[in-house]
Amino acid sequence: MAMMFKSTFDESTGWNRYLKEYGAEQEMRVWPDVGRLEDIEYALVWRPEHGDLKRYPNLKVIFSIGAGVDHIFSDPELPKHVPVCRIVDSDLTAQMSEYAIYGVLHYHRKMPGYVRGQQDRAWRKLGISDTTRSHVGVMGIGQIGGDTAKKLAALGFQVSGWSRTPKKLPGIRVFSGEAELRPFLASSQFLVCVLPLTGATRGILNEKTLSLMPKGGYLINMARGAHVVDEDLIKVLDSGHLGGAMLDVFHKEPLDSAHPFWAHPKIIVTPHIAGDLNPRTCGMQVAENILRHRKGEPLKNVVDPAAEY
Amino acid sequence: MAMMFKSTFDESTGWNRYLKEYGAEQEMRVWPDVGRLEDIEYALVWRPEHGDLKRYPNLKVIFSIGAGVDHIFSDPELPKHVPVCRIVDSDLTAQMSEYAIYGVLHYHRKMPGYVRGQQDRAWRKLGISDTTRSHVGVMGIGQIGGDTAKKLAALGFQVSGWSRTPKKLPGIRVFSGEAELRPFLASSQFLVCVLPLTGATRGILNEKTLSLMPKGGYLINMARGAHVVDEDLIKVLDSGHLGGAMLDVFHKEPLDSAHPFWAHPKIIVTPHIAGDLNPRTCGMQVAENILRHRKGEPLKNVVDPAAEY
Repeated sequence: MAMMFKSTFDESTGWNRYLKEYGAEQEMRVWPDVGRLEDIEYALVWRPEHGDLKRYPNLKVIFSIGAGVDHIFSDPELPKHVPVCRIVDSDLTAQMSEYAIYGVLHYHRKMPGYVRGQQDRAWRKLGISDTTRSHVGVMGIGQIGGDTAKKLAALGFQVSGWSRTPKKLPGIRVFSGEAELRPFLASSQFLVCVLPLTGATRGILNEKTLSLMPKGGYLINMARGAHVVDEDLIKVLDSGHLGGAMLDVFHKEPLDSAHPFWAHPKIIVTPHIAGDLNPRTCGMQVAENILRHRKGEPLKNVVDPAAEY
Repeated sequence: MAMMFKSTFDESTGWNRYLKEYGAEQEMRVWPDVGRLEDIEYALVWRPEHGDLKRYPNLKVIFSIGAGVDHIFSDPELPKHVPVCRIVDSDLTAQMSEYAIYGVLHYHRKMPGYVRGQQDRAWRKLGISDTTRSHVGVMGIGQIGGDTAKKLAALGFQVSGWSRTPKKLPGIRVFSGEAELRPFLASSQFLVCVLPLTGATRGILNEKTLSLMPKGGYLINMARGAHVVDEDLIKVLDSGHLGGAMLDVFHKEPLDSAHPFWAHPKIIVTPHIAGDLNPRTCGMQVAENILRHRKGEPLKNVVDPAAEY
């Protein structure tokens, strides 16, 4: 049996080194040279071709090279009976939280104004907002969002979370479901998006929802570009309703050099660097699940196919 | 008896409102209209004139409007028998820590490079450094530095501290004294200065000490401008030894518009906004010490005149 490997950004050899180290070396077949389709037992993929995964009759587990699985569930012909496992990486989580904290502090401490002040050689104090009265809303409070929320609360911010289903997080007010999206947004001066991209969350940051945020609010998107309706975001920034947006993810990456985000005075663009997978952690997690699968034990970090995360 | 008030940035009326609220209303004499010198029992000051404080024969306590007291101890004729109290403000502490965290993350997450990338409309990933192997050194680990160190450690950084006298902080390696300054600096990729300004710390950040830092290191100074020898800092930045500096404090404030810091490509200038005193907290602390003084109880936050902090 063999493992089908397809990634747009890394190599099968690095992966197999770690799989071997953790006792689960595989015969790697790098897409598109997959050989006999019947041999493929596992797929380790980032952005598999639509219609490809259904071709392997003996496929047992699909491993996402990433915390997100939208790149797999976007395949309309995905074989729904095959479990999909994602990576839950504590390094990635910590990096994402750093990005969110940086973004929130950048706006909370009025750094865009100080950057302009320096350009003007002008000593202009802009005052300090009270952190304990500043509200951050974290959309999506799983592994990453939960960590982000907890760390922002430890800095003194008022932190709320929003998730599809009701959740409890110590010290964090959690809103849930469609019904509570409105009060959640209305309280979020700083909105941090770390949602999974699903049919239900695509385009969730649009003119209507962003307009529910307090005037002068800020968006930090480190989830997926497709959560945002680009034209709507520009509209609420240009109208003065929102004060700024820090964006790490885009509909199409790399972001096209002609895209209006690059030169927008209220937008910070970073090239999808909020978090990066640690190859060792990933290798270890995939290896562990392979060993579990071999022994008939339950897999870890399996995605709920109904929720798509 | 009365209180002499002198400040370059706030008003006596606001102060007296809080003193009254906390049961210690004073007859305020706003400098230079201080009336009979014998009446003055307390002084509430920011940057008193040199030689002024020795004029009041019945002066019992000097209150600094600030966490720092260098503006008082710089007076060569300061009456040494009068206790000096400073402000210890948890809001100020939290704000200072925010500034340090922002500065460290700015450099750690390579934001200067991403700002340039955006200006060039270029999708350039610069990689993510491992936080758990990144070393931050905090110079001065009192109230503020201790909080900063603790919060940076909670984000996963390796944090060391340096102080004049040996100290213990959980999870933080503390270096102390002149003898351990060298190994402390050698380990500090990110150096956060929050030292008090005293005869012993003036000019402590100079070509010799900054050259002890690892190549490519970063300085964040939120203490006093006079800790830094400006020309030396520019020299180690221009030589490429240091990667950048974020400065909130300067020898002369406001920073002169002709000063080379403003336009230096590796320097971020902010106009002394890392922290701001909360007037209510200050009023409460001064009121509490007045009441303690009246009852003959020991004062809080008294400065050690030998150490000058």
